[in-house]
Amino acid sequence: MAADSPYKIDVALIHCPVINKSGEIIGSAVTNLDLHDIARAGCTYGVDTYWVVTPDTMQQDLVREIVSHWTEGYGGSVNPDRKNALSLIRVCSSLDEVIEGMTEKWSVRPHTLATCARPGQGTEGYSETRNRIRQGIPELLLFGTAWGLAPEVLSRVDGILPPLRGINEFNHLSVRSAVSIILDRLMALPDER
Amino acid sequence: MAADSPYKIDVALIHCPVINKSGEIIGSAVTNLDLHDIARAGCTYGVDTYWVVTPDTMQQDLVREIVSHWTEGYGGSVNPDRKNALSLIRVCSSLDEVIEGMTEKWSVRPHTLATCARPGQGTEGYSETRNRIRQGIPELLLFGTAWGLAPEVLSRVDGILPPLRGINEFNHLSVRSAVSIILDRLMALPDER
Repeated sequence: MAADSPYKIDVALIHCPVINKSGEIIGSAVTNLDLHDIARAGCTYGVDTYWVVTPDTMQQDLVREIVSHWTEGYGGSVNPDRKNALSLIRVCSSLDEVIEGMTEKWSVRPHTLATCARPGQGTEGYSETRNRIRQGIPELLLFGTAWGLAPEVLSRVDGILPPLRGINEFNHLSVRSAVSIILDRLMALPDER
Repeated sequence: MAADSPYKIDVALIHCPVINKSGEIIGSAVTNLDLHDIARAGCTYGVDTYWVVTPDTMQQDLVREIVSHWTEGYGGSVNPDRKNALSLIRVCSSLDEVIEGMTEKWSVRPHTLATCARPGQGTEGYSETRNRIRQGIPELLLFGTAWGLAPEVLSRVDGILPPLRGINEFNHLSVRSAVSIILDRLMALPDER
């Protein structure tokens, strides 16, 4: 859990169900740097829990092994900042488990917001999301690996953030970059930017 | 080179000289996902060239091999977006070579701006940097691997951006996250955020 965060915000990285390049439903493999980069960004911007979601028990064990190296093993003793960051990670099997865990933690069901790089998907803006977070309403931000969250995930959330756009139509950011940018947009103080 | 960018902005990722955890001057090894993530963010936000700076010729060859897989080999044929992104990469040996290359490209020496996670280093704000970039002045953004740019690099730039801050003193972002966030702060249109 994040120390000193005034917000109730969690991030979930979904490995299944996501889509592949052809739009088919798949489960993706865990990427080591997704664990580190998103945990480090989460710790910087006040995320309470970073949920790593995969139904594959061998992948779950792999994540736990990596996390424990940094939180309980040698990694954490030589790099306490990394220990603090990776302490945010909690492994689970499904989006249902994430929502149950958050509801239990904060005694209220979180507002759920998906992210999607495909055009035309946005239903809620950054400004209104910032306001909601600052009011202390528990918020779950969902990110997909591979080519993004499956339609069955997008259809059951409360809203979808607009795709990140730069200067043109190219927006093929890594999920590590997308999480970092979105947390900065939502959580950095205005005078920091 | 980035297509359709109205800006003259380059990014350089320095592998030597940088500092290690103890503040000693070192050269770091290239990380594959630094190439991909920063190229993808650069392509999204209109970076013209992404300079990968290392004096180690074996590391240079490794970078060129990875880049050519995606720009000329099988990778690019199955993933054209990745091809476009990695086409931004140019390998070189030193900061001097970067500045010479930019001066040649735009017929004027670029304004050079370092980034640094250590507190108290900021000398130029995001707002004034945005204004300069929008005026079309060539800008070089320097990022360090490992524990950051060596003092000898910081002492020869025109300015230093303030460290990224979230909600507290923890700001141990990966360089991939830092580049992504800083490009978003500098280049995203205000109504996008």
